[in-house]
Amino acid sequence: MTKLKWGMIGGGEGSQIGPAHRLGAIADGRFELVAAAFDHRPAKGKAFAESLGVDSSRAYCSWSEMLVGEKNRDDAVDLVTVATPNATHFEITKSFLEAGFNVLCEKPMTMTVEEGEEIYKIAKKSGRVFSVNYCYSAYPMVRQARAMVRSGDIGKLRLIITNFSHGHHADAEDAENPRVRWRYDPQMAGVSGQFADCGIHAMHLASFISDDTVESLSADFASTISTRILEDDAFVNFRLSKGVVGRLWTSSVAIGRQHGFDIQIFGETGGLRWASEQPNQLIYTPLSGRTQVIEKGEADLYDDAKRISRVAIAHPEGFPLAVANMYMDLADAISGYERDGLPTAEDGLRSMAAVYAAVASAKKNGLWVDARPPVFGGKG
Amino acid sequence: MTKLKWGMIGGGEGSQIGPAHRLGAIADGRFELVAAAFDHRPAKGKAFAESLGVDSSRAYCSWSEMLVGEKNRDDAVDLVTVATPNATHFEITKSFLEAGFNVLCEKPMTMTVEEGEEIYKIAKKSGRVFSVNYCYSAYPMVRQARAMVRSGDIGKLRLIITNFSHGHHADAEDAENPRVRWRYDPQMAGVSGQFADCGIHAMHLASFISDDTVESLSADFASTISTRILEDDAFVNFRLSKGVVGRLWTSSVAIGRQHGFDIQIFGETGGLRWASEQPNQLIYTPLSGRTQVIEKGEADLYDDAKRISRVAIAHPEGFPLAVANMYMDLADAISGYERDGLPTAEDGLRSMAAVYAAVASAKKNGLWVDARPPVFGGKG
Amino acid sequence: MTKLKWGMIGGGEGSQIGPAHRLGAIADGRFELVAAAFDHRPAKGKAFAESLGVDSSRAYCSWSEMLVGEKNRDDAVDLVTVATPNATHFEITKSFLEAGFNVLCEKPMTMTVEEGEEIYKIAKKSGRVFSVNYCYSAYPMVRQARAMVRSGDIGKLRLIITNFSHGHHADAEDAENPRVRWRYDPQMAGVSGQFADCGIHAMHLASFISDDTVESLSADFASTISTRILEDDAFVNFRLSKGVVGRLWTSSVAIGRQHGFDIQIFGETGGLRWASEQPNQLIYTPLSGRTQVIEKGEADLYDDAKRISRVAIAHPEGFPLAVANMYMDLADAISGYERDGLPTAEDGLRSMAAVYAAVASAKKNGLWVDARPPVFGGKG
Amino acid sequence: MTKLKWGMIGGGEGSQIGPAHRLGAIADGRFELVAAAFDHRPAKGKAFAESLGVDSSRAYCSWSEMLVGEKNRDDAVDLVTVATPNATHFEITKSFLEAGFNVLCEKPMTMTVEEGEEIYKIAKKSGRVFSVNYCYSAYPMVRQARAMVRSGDIGKLRLIITNFSHGHHADAEDAENPRVRWRYDPQMAGVSGQFADCGIHAMHLASFISDDTVESLSADFASTISTRILEDDAFVNFRLSKGVVGRLWTSSVAIGRQHGFDIQIFGETGGLRWASEQPNQLIYTPLSGRTQVIEKGEADLYDDAKRISRVAIAHPEGFPLAVANMYMDLADAISGYERDGLPTAEDGLRSMAAVYAAVASAKKNGLWVDARPPVFGGKG
Repeated sequence: MTKLKWGMIGGGEGSQIGPAHRLGAIADGRFELVAAAFDHRPAKGKAFAESLGVDSSRAYCSWSEMLVGEKNRDDAVDLVTVATPNATHFEITKSFLEAGFNVLCEKPMTMTVEEGEEIYKIAKKSGRVFSVNYCYSAYPMVRQARAMVRSGDIGKLRLIITNFSHGHHADAEDAENPRVRWRYDPQMAGVSGQFADCGIHAMHLASFISDDTVESLSADFASTISTRILEDDAFVNFRLSKGVVGRLWTSSVAIGRQHGFDIQIFGETGGLRWASEQPNQLIYTPLSGRTQVIEKGEADLYDDAKRISRVAIAHPEGFPLAVANMYMDLADAISGYERDGLPTAEDGLRSMAAVYAAVASAKKNGLWVDARPPVFGGKG
Repeated sequence: MTKLKWGMIGGGEGSQIGPAHRLGAIADGRFELVAAAFDHRPAKGKAFAESLGVDSSRAYCSWSEMLVGEKNRDDAVDLVTVATPNATHFEITKSFLEAGFNVLCEKPMTMTVEEGEEIYKIAKKSGRVFSVNYCYSAYPMVRQARAMVRSGDIGKLRLIITNFSHGHHADAEDAENPRVRWRYDPQMAGVSGQFADCGIHAMHLASFISDDTVESLSADFASTISTRILEDDAFVNFRLSKGVVGRLWTSSVAIGRQHGFDIQIFGETGGLRWASEQPNQLIYTPLSGRTQVIEKGEADLYDDAKRISRVAIAHPEGFPLAVANMYMDLADAISGYERDGLPTAEDGLRSMAAVYAAVASAKKNGLWVDARPPVFGGKG
Repeated sequence: MTKLKWGMIGGGEGSQIGPAHRLGAIADGRFELVAAAFDHRPAKGKAFAESLGVDSSRAYCSWSEMLVGEKNRDDAVDLVTVATPNATHFEITKSFLEAGFNVLCEKPMTMTVEEGEEIYKIAKKSGRVFSVNYCYSAYPMVRQARAMVRSGDIGKLRLIITNFSHGHHADAEDAENPRVRWRYDPQMAGVSGQFADCGIHAMHLASFISDDTVESLSADFASTISTRILEDDAFVNFRLSKGVVGRLWTSSVAIGRQHGFDIQIFGETGGLRWASEQPNQLIYTPLSGRTQVIEKGEADLYDDAKRISRVAIAHPEGFPLAVANMYMDLADAISGYERDGLPTAEDGLRSMAAVYAAVASAKKNGLWVDARPPVFGGKG
Repeated sequence: MTKLKWGMIGGGEGSQIGPAHRLGAIADGRFELVAAAFDHRPAKGKAFAESLGVDSSRAYCSWSEMLVGEKNRDDAVDLVTVATPNATHFEITKSFLEAGFNVLCEKPMTMTVEEGEEIYKIAKKSGRVFSVNYCYSAYPMVRQARAMVRSGDIGKLRLIITNFSHGHHADAEDAENPRVRWRYDPQMAGVSGQFADCGIHAMHLASFISDDTVESLSADFASTISTRILEDDAFVNFRLSKGVVGRLWTSSVAIGRQHGFDIQIFGETGGLRWASEQPNQLIYTPLSGRTQVIEKGEADLYDDAKRISRVAIAHPEGFPLAVANMYMDLADAISGYERDGLPTAEDGLRSMAAVYAAVASAKKNGLWVDARPPVFGGKG
């Protein structure tokens, strides 16, 4: 199998998410890094790219240079990953999509609903493969959960409870540290802090597993560290399109929770529970039976789960391989096998609409508001 | 030590809570059952009382007969436990308090805020020992949590998250079963279903551990089984008097959760987590340290926790002994040792006010409402 | 129901096991403490007995005084509990059994195999109710495990793995503390330290759940703290009479293990796992199915498990109520209902034979030895 | 950084361990697959190699062809991985080492102690980088455990308890399935079944974390499925050179245990616990303190642990990345940075000596035997 050619924008040396992308892209031998614009400091980015084996001619000084350079090559990259600061996702993604590239964009896809709608339309029109890195949806046992819901194993859904709450920004004395501070500053983070940063992962997962979309929501935001303008703790009650009740807690001041991302799905005939810190088990309880442990790697998983596991039962597979599953699906999609598990531009857009809706609701004392983007019927 | 004389109203043969009270009252040898009005079916109640060794003359046919009978004895009961159907708690409790008895009332203390205020005033005026059976507050590790908060071990509080969510009423086909049905029928259960039944235990615990009271709240109620009038799933965001953020989920359709009662408390310098299904451990994380397991029975617990444990570290003590701890505190209080851990009439009243506030908020689409009873400044 | 009259020898003020017996005996209202010889210091023992409501005439100064006193009463005690220092169990138990009393003896039943055989024969001949306090066998979920094995739910047994390993004697600096020291001193503890103290609980449980007896064993003992004469860590491989393989680890220097008592049972068609620190769950895996959680209180438990639980599913019941279950079974047995769950004199004897066999094997470099008492075919 | 050139022998299509090696080798961009002899069926092996991008000229039909081919190239492979059936490890490894290649050999390194000594001597003399794939030692938290032991964090070691027990060969009806059968057939598996297959991983880990070697042992083997010649369940008591007590259980009939690999290390001042199914946490209890959770990714890990983690705290890293850590260390070692975490030929040899010692002891009813290979003082 020939490797696909891969290029990366942002995520250079010292970046937190960069290594996970690089490992994810190459882990299964499907992609080869051939081009990069790693850094807004040109020399640094070029040097890092070359250290990773990128040819000097494709170690670009900026994303725009990379756009021009790659557009004119016969052997242009098959996929571009955008892992730059959030505020630049829109412009870069838009430019590459319009130039005919396949794109994987880090979340959030954009900073506004309007931008989101634009990306959504461009991606749709372009016919290119596009995805947003909601990589938790690419864990085998999350796919198993979705397959179980689809197969009716827990009956008609009633209720989804999800949390993404950690304690890594709980230190008031560290709050002014620039590494932390920007997340709660509207100048840099946009309209929302913790909900936009972590909460939307949880909201995406609720939609993903239920195969449904968020219609309306009511939010309660808190800045538990008083110097913060944006929220560091939030609760969102929501309703999916089919009336399913959703409840989502997200926090960055929950001392003792390390990652704290979990989800429970309750239907008429069963319940499911999954936690990102024990990702290889899915807990299942049928209505009139006992709680069972479904293990990654067991013989009777659904194909959607089986397909993306690499090693035997009880050999744990972790976060970097969930990212690798994203790239596996992207490689398949680029090669012509549609992979319905890949988060879409619609997902990116709906997330952004949910963020704005939550901010609006929180400001109006928890008033329920429409959470849909205008293009999907929302009132904005 | 002479045993205190104890009488019980309700909680007869076949009752779910009756055995826990009987075991709790006698476990430590502090009380002796000497009087009872166990059942609204006089013969049945009398026979059961006599089978438990109650003298025939004090095996009463009704609570009112017991009131008269005991009032006129020199050796009247030292404590009356009221474990009758909810709607009768008010009248019985009122009568016994006014007659000068010490009373332990099952939750809910009353069906309305007005009744709650009346009991509160009577109890206060009477000078008798009175408590409501919020027995989760009597687990050693819950007392340890409160002692840690009081001692500043986790700093100024910021956030409390609590859940009391089980799945035992999730079967739609069983929903019309009278054993289940009444809980969701306003004729029998009052204004609230799951929140009044289980949620207020969680809300009480939040207040108990934080030594604070609920000021305002916003609620989202759902009846996930469509034939139900009252809610079987609820979420309540609330604020304590000092601004602490609270979030509470309660459900009876969460298939796979057995008891599902847990609480997390986050302060400026630490976090705590306790779950009623592993009640002998308290999980503690200091701001800049590792997560630790605090065990019931370890040497350096606070006295409030030590005092109410009976066996060595890692020998589990369970729910019936939490009830026994209530009786231990009651025996002490009756004997003149004040026990500030005992839930009070104020707690019973505030719980009822919170129930009515949650119902009002849920009806008004989550509008934030005052959750305080009028006597404590609430606007009703 | 009239209460049975109960007397206690040893287990007085400050004793570790005394409170568990008192709570266990009275918790279900089946026994009433009417006689006691609590202490070898007569005045102290008498005062404590009277403080617990024992009539002065039955607050005895010694067990021999109690024997005489009770023998001559029409209303003599229905059950005597022997909770004195280990070396005295034999003489006291023998005396009371021969005088026609029902007896519950703390473990170990005796200090030698010969004494064990004597008690076994006396108990058998006497026709009285006799038991040894292997109270872990009285947890509901242990009874459920035995019932499952008996019902063939996990097929023919193959393998039992059990551990009883804690770390409470791991501190070398505390090793000379008399409270700890005696356990490793042959003058006081007999031929074995940790194995006789904790290991035999695990070995009894293996026999109990499998309904089988230990035939032979091979042991490895270690004194990890060099000043200790007796072992503080031991491993015993054994075989049950039907060829089932057993493996048992016991330690008192396993820092971080609090109680550390668990058991796994593997048969041809399933496996079970139970841990004393989460006693209300039994983990079950069928050969070709998923691991399931069996909960105390669920609807379809076997009767042996159901009968001895007091409160609803997921309301934990702990160690003191396991002891209470012993007393419940004793009360039934005294009242004429045979309870096959009660540990017998044969169990007490076989345990002692296993201790001596393990000591002999350890001394002979792990040689396999016969573990049966002579009366059951052992070669001694 | 230029990629190292990597060749693979065995582990072709359908192999269980092959994918883990391929992912492990390329995950960090340190190796590039350039040569392979994947299969004893030449055409199949060649085709698979080419499908992975190996040049046709280096897609070899056999390991001997590969040996000749690579020896004569200027750009010969920097590392050869041997993942063929166990009985061939010796010959292939020997040949490549003697030809001057760096080698990673799957476990077991050889089938006999004599072969093991030969590899040990050749590897030593060759000066090449050589390792055996005891990859569990390459988990970050295992390295943390070793670093803590080395730093004296738990004091002088006393005791190591380790288990590697699963239930995947428990089905008697499946025992004749060739996929399972060979493991218990001396013709194919050698002198030992489960102990040689899984037990030696546990024994290696005990040595690795303790920085010590096994001196002597006593074993108890069982074939719980009667048609099996070799053991499917084994227990080994052992002593390390400094007198530390070791205890090791391994089984393949422990229904319900999936992977079942864990280790506990107890010293004079603390205890550690690690389990391969939750590999990102290390549980630590200091002698006089509370049990703590050490998380992969926390700030104050030892460098040995930090160096081999890729993503942030609480983002799990699993088995394939432990294998990747082996390759990371190999790449470093080949590039001239010594990595003392890499299992050595001495480890491979000592493992084989322990297997033979255990077999001998089990045959002699558990007699304690010398477990050292002759070259390290053993009596054979």
